[in-house]
Amino acid sequence: MGNTFGHLFRVTTFGESHGGGVGVVIDGCPPQLEISETDIQVELDRRRPGQSRITTPRNESDTCEILSGVFQGKTLGTPIAILVRNKDQRSQDYGEMATVYRPSHADATYDAKYGIRNWQGGGRSSARETIGRVAAGAIAKKILHRFGVEIIGYVRRIKDLEAPIDPDTVTLEAVESNIVRCPDALYAEKMIALIDATRQNADSIGGVVECVVRNVPIGLGSPVFDRLEADLAKGVMSLPASKGFEIGSGFAGTLLTGKEHNDEFYTDDTGRIRTVTNRSGGVQGGISNGENIILRVAFKPTATIGQAQRTVSQTGEATVLSAKGRHDPCVLPRAVPMVESMVALVLCDHLMRHHGQCELLGEPLGEPLE
Amino acid sequence: MGNTFGHLFRVTTFGESHGGGVGVVIDGCPPQLEISETDIQVELDRRRPGQSRITTPRNESDTCEILSGVFQGKTLGTPIAILVRNKDQRSQDYGEMATVYRPSHADATYDAKYGIRNWQGGGRSSARETIGRVAAGAIAKKILHRFGVEIIGYVRRIKDLEAPIDPDTVTLEAVESNIVRCPDALYAEKMIALIDATRQNADSIGGVVECVVRNVPIGLGSPVFDRLEADLAKGVMSLPASKGFEIGSGFAGTLLTGKEHNDEFYTDDTGRIRTVTNRSGGVQGGISNGENIILRVAFKPTATIGQAQRTVSQTGEATVLSAKGRHDPCVLPRAVPMVESMVALVLCDHLMRHHGQCELLGEPLGEPLE
Amino acid sequence: MGNTFGHLFRVTTFGESHGGGVGVVIDGCPPQLEISETDIQVELDRRRPGQSRITTPRNESDTCEILSGVFQGKTLGTPIAILVRNKDQRSQDYGEMATVYRPSHADATYDAKYGIRNWQGGGRSSARETIGRVAAGAIAKKILHRFGVEIIGYVRRIKDLEAPIDPDTVTLEAVESNIVRCPDALYAEKMIALIDATRQNADSIGGVVECVVRNVPIGLGSPVFDRLEADLAKGVMSLPASKGFEIGSGFAGTLLTGKEHNDEFYTDDTGRIRTVTNRSGGVQGGISNGENIILRVAFKPTATIGQAQRTVSQTGEATVLSAKGRHDPCVLPRAVPMVESMVALVLCDHLMRHHGQCELLGEPLGEPLE
Amino acid sequence: MGNTFGHLFRVTTFGESHGGGVGVVIDGCPPQLEISETDIQVELDRRRPGQSRITTPRNESDTCEILSGVFQGKTLGTPIAILVRNKDQRSQDYGEMATVYRPSHADATYDAKYGIRNWQGGGRSSARETIGRVAAGAIAKKILHRFGVEIIGYVRRIKDLEAPIDPDTVTLEAVESNIVRCPDALYAEKMIALIDATRQNADSIGGVVECVVRNVPIGLGSPVFDRLEADLAKGVMSLPASKGFEIGSGFAGTLLTGKEHNDEFYTDDTGRIRTVTNRSGGVQGGISNGENIILRVAFKPTATIGQAQRTVSQTGEATVLSAKGRHDPCVLPRAVPMVESMVALVLCDHLMRHHGQCELLGEPLGEPLE
Repeated sequence: MGNTFGHLFRVTTFGESHGGGVGVVIDGCPPQLEISETDIQVELDRRRPGQSRITTPRNESDTCEILSGVFQGKTLGTPIAILVRNKDQRSQDYGEMATVYRPSHADATYDAKYGIRNWQGGGRSSARETIGRVAAGAIAKKILHRFGVEIIGYVRRIKDLEAPIDPDTVTLEAVESNIVRCPDALYAEKMIALIDATRQNADSIGGVVECVVRNVPIGLGSPVFDRLEADLAKGVMSLPASKGFEIGSGFAGTLLTGKEHNDEFYTDDTGRIRTVTNRSGGVQGGISNGENIILRVAFKPTATIGQAQRTVSQTGEATVLSAKGRHDPCVLPRAVPMVESMVALVLCDHLMRHHGQCELLGEPLGEPLE
Repeated sequence: MGNTFGHLFRVTTFGESHGGGVGVVIDGCPPQLEISETDIQVELDRRRPGQSRITTPRNESDTCEILSGVFQGKTLGTPIAILVRNKDQRSQDYGEMATVYRPSHADATYDAKYGIRNWQGGGRSSARETIGRVAAGAIAKKILHRFGVEIIGYVRRIKDLEAPIDPDTVTLEAVESNIVRCPDALYAEKMIALIDATRQNADSIGGVVECVVRNVPIGLGSPVFDRLEADLAKGVMSLPASKGFEIGSGFAGTLLTGKEHNDEFYTDDTGRIRTVTNRSGGVQGGISNGENIILRVAFKPTATIGQAQRTVSQTGEATVLSAKGRHDPCVLPRAVPMVESMVALVLCDHLMRHHGQCELLGEPLGEPLE
Repeated sequence: MGNTFGHLFRVTTFGESHGGGVGVVIDGCPPQLEISETDIQVELDRRRPGQSRITTPRNESDTCEILSGVFQGKTLGTPIAILVRNKDQRSQDYGEMATVYRPSHADATYDAKYGIRNWQGGGRSSARETIGRVAAGAIAKKILHRFGVEIIGYVRRIKDLEAPIDPDTVTLEAVESNIVRCPDALYAEKMIALIDATRQNADSIGGVVECVVRNVPIGLGSPVFDRLEADLAKGVMSLPASKGFEIGSGFAGTLLTGKEHNDEFYTDDTGRIRTVTNRSGGVQGGISNGENIILRVAFKPTATIGQAQRTVSQTGEATVLSAKGRHDPCVLPRAVPMVESMVALVLCDHLMRHHGQCELLGEPLGEPLE
Repeated sequence: MGNTFGHLFRVTTFGESHGGGVGVVIDGCPPQLEISETDIQVELDRRRPGQSRITTPRNESDTCEILSGVFQGKTLGTPIAILVRNKDQRSQDYGEMATVYRPSHADATYDAKYGIRNWQGGGRSSARETIGRVAAGAIAKKILHRFGVEIIGYVRRIKDLEAPIDPDTVTLEAVESNIVRCPDALYAEKMIALIDATRQNADSIGGVVECVVRNVPIGLGSPVFDRLEADLAKGVMSLPASKGFEIGSGFAGTLLTGKEHNDEFYTDDTGRIRTVTNRSGGVQGGISNGENIILRVAFKPTATIGQAQRTVSQTGEATVLSAKGRHDPCVLPRAVPMVESMVALVLCDHLMRHHGQCELLGEPLGEPLE
């Protein structure tokens, strides 16, 4: 268990980095949604290795096949299974991994938990697993798009290089205009240079992905345990290498007083109740308030590095390891679509849950756009 | 939905701050565990309002009654229902809340989502709801204690006052030795003074609760979605007023390189595989590795303040609000047992899940202590 | 675990026959539904012991208290907790039960599973547990009623006395017109006489409850595992003493050929597609087709009887037991509201699930009535 | 939703009869279990069409591929994905199905619920979907086998031909010795002749599958909603064409008095508490008591028949339909492995649940066999 996410829009991923392939089953997708392999491939291409010189040189096309749940271009309401075959597998790169534990990796804990481990390329703990999430996220995004919702992730910080970005105005075009996915062109260049230097040093770096959601329907989130921020936190903290989450003012907000921090209300020209500031990050009391949702995720530096590290073998003998496999010096650029996908899965699920519970007898919050 | 937490050790809370009471149903508790109302009351007393001069002057004894699931002092394996009646209710303090939205509170979003709201004292969005969590957490702690697990939460920071604390050696006694629950005596005094001053100014402040778990069984956590850190994040981010979560090196860890950040392995004198450092915070690949779990939660300044704030009424008219109800100038001291409880619920659930899946055919990780 | 039922309309029951009380938490109820303790009490009174001379003489008023989730007469959308205190407890009647296993009861299996058991009055295995189900069912019925749905259960057969009843025309008034809840007056008399005679013989009898649902929205049910008939089967087979379930033609339908059994389609005067016959029992392919849902549940003769029976003690010694506690000679009259409640819980949950998944983007099946 | 079954041993099926294929993802499987495609293929071959002259002449090899979760012949504890490609597809046989509703099929209800339908070969409502269940059931059986559990299903009755079979002694060899899977050789011949005659008449027939489980661990089942018989009922009633379920004495048991029906206890030579009779069918109070579990499932006559039937088109026009697709005149022989699989899924899940909850602190019920 532990490989299913969501309540109504339920996503189950499967697959290891080596073996028959990786994929996802999406159960509960609304019927009659137009979807094609192209819609999904676009997002997978943003995630795939080898997409640029600052990602791992492993070159996998990650071509997806929709096995079920779609008929004549539309969802059936039945489970959508999507499969991506594993292709560019060089098991020889990983021979040592069968017996030596990589520091800050999952090798040792998988062995301890399961008593067995697919040591080829990280197996289930490989970031390759996130293919299923991104494929499902592509569908969730399409549903949300029908309600006008826009989700944009981007690299906010690489190591100590923090770009000045306004989440309220950032565009997907700006994000996708460079290979590091930082919408600030100047900082993007600096970040790319830093990643290049880090790779040449056989080291790795991390940073912070920020994600903004605009045009969020009011009313999403199910207190008390399924508060929207709680489910968002779980979603992104289930991504490999994530070490921290914050929403709105986050940790920095604890430095303010209540008077300074509170979001005062006003009524805008259209009669809608709004907040003057948005330190809440679009969520109050666990429920979306219609302001932009803004969240940040900390990703640690990639655990796999070329430099020599002290470690132990499966049987506990001390040894030294220098990773030979191909790997990312910085996961952040590829983490952007992963974060967006988890956010989309959470919002789509809560949209359906809200519809099922609160709009059954009452007024609908809004209609899907044509 | 949204009011149940956990998979095998399943907790469902109910109740509003005003009305018949608040409580919890725990389904799936292992049978034959000794438990009494006293075990639960100890933890509820750490959470209750009026426990000290720096918490809200609302004085509720929060006496719990075990309605079911315990017989002759032992759990039956059937649902344990625990009820705490609401007592010290002064609805007159809250009259204005029926029509005016408190900034950064849940009033407006509850109205938007449900079209109806119990406006007395915050209703379901009141921190009073956490009574059920703390009661359930007391039972989870007892189970974990049988396996040697120790969970200690404490106030690490109030506003910009950050105490120097070593999570590996901190004691419950030190935490409980002062009313702010900061184990550093010097900083505790400073924090208490700051809270006092803040209250006199009719303002509020926030901060960071840190929590350490020691003697954690290796192998807890169910990748990929139910990674241990993901479930911990969800648990604590579902607490009222939480705005951020981090584990191990957290956000600060993103400033290091991989070489600096990785936890190298070694084998200790007893033959156990350990890590030299613990930037992972006790979790690698979503699974506990036996090192101490260390996590931090950011709590914003209390939204309810005595100072005047601009806001709107339910019908959108601009108005000014100065809270008259009794409230905490700083939630941190009372948040400590809440954080501990959510951590205990997550770990207990994963202990049972691990037992059900991975120890069915294989070797048990360890035996409960007598 | 095992004490929660439903996906969106989630019901968790708690309580043993002796102890603080029994009850239920309903999570996910749509907000703004008018509900009162009277609405619930009406159904509890149909279930309660001592309601007539053919039920157990235990006389409990089973008065319910709504603890949470309802405000000013309307549901809040937050968890609704309902508590019924235990009152008429004569533990002395049950002294022997602490050590002697009642044949065909749950005493021995609870001991084997949990290693502990509340032996007073059956504890959790008591039919008293169904109070929570009936209370939740009362709310589910109210929601369904808003969509025109009508659920009527009745006693179809007691032992070999099978009443001729037309499910398409049976009325609640006819069912409630006599104490055995058989809408056929002639058979009702015969059944009552048979139950009287059975009680005088210190024996017990069983039979079949039939339940019809009229005006069912088309489209309820979630293939493949949550087919409507599968969830209905689970719901009623989770009731104490149930031994069999069938829908539509059931077991008898297996004696027909496909040509004889199939329900041919036609279009009625209003343009609606209907079936000429209804051997499917209102469900085709796991989804309601708008025809009446008709199902039957077999209830075994009450296990508790006054006659002497051979059995063993907890430690395995042979002994003889004659039940002294007060008990029903036939559970069928009181099982009627239990069956109706489980059917209502299943349908309400599926109505909400359908709304959440299939009506998000598409056309609603219908509107709630005012 | 609705396509996941089980709590710890969680099975999600996907796929339509036409399209990329059908399959299953099993999440939560215990690690280190030896499993191969051969183990699974054996069971799929018992289910596959074209296996004998009394099943559909559609000839599909249904060859399975394990995509993930198994490494070097053993389960990893990660999700096991199994895929069976669709092969022998003659869409031209189904052209009419795009617009004409087959009586007693799912065509009309799928259209009503989802507003769209894969009309080729029944789509998701095809019995082909059960491939995933049988594949998962093969793994569940292997786990149960480690605990000595034996599950044997067989055809008990075809139309009115009811074979005299003793569930306590029936063998798999006897069941598999003939193509109708009735262990009584004499009745098997009669049944085969009846099916042959029915097919020649372009008609279809149904019957009853019985299933016995021997060597069941005591203590499986989670009252109150997840009583073992409730989950068994749900499991088998989610199979296509099932119309009824009974356990132990079932409907016939309602003709007895309590004195006649109760299973008296005794202590056997080994000191184990047993029941003299087994009208409970191996389950008391929702929990297995160690006696053989015996259950029966009614399967209606196949809906698809060659004879002309009156029906309507998608737009409601009256028409006549004679099925041209290849189909089973009687599903019973192929339903046997389906019933066994659902029973195995339920028992395996409850075995793990019991282990997770009740054996955490207490004594294990037993050890897996080597």
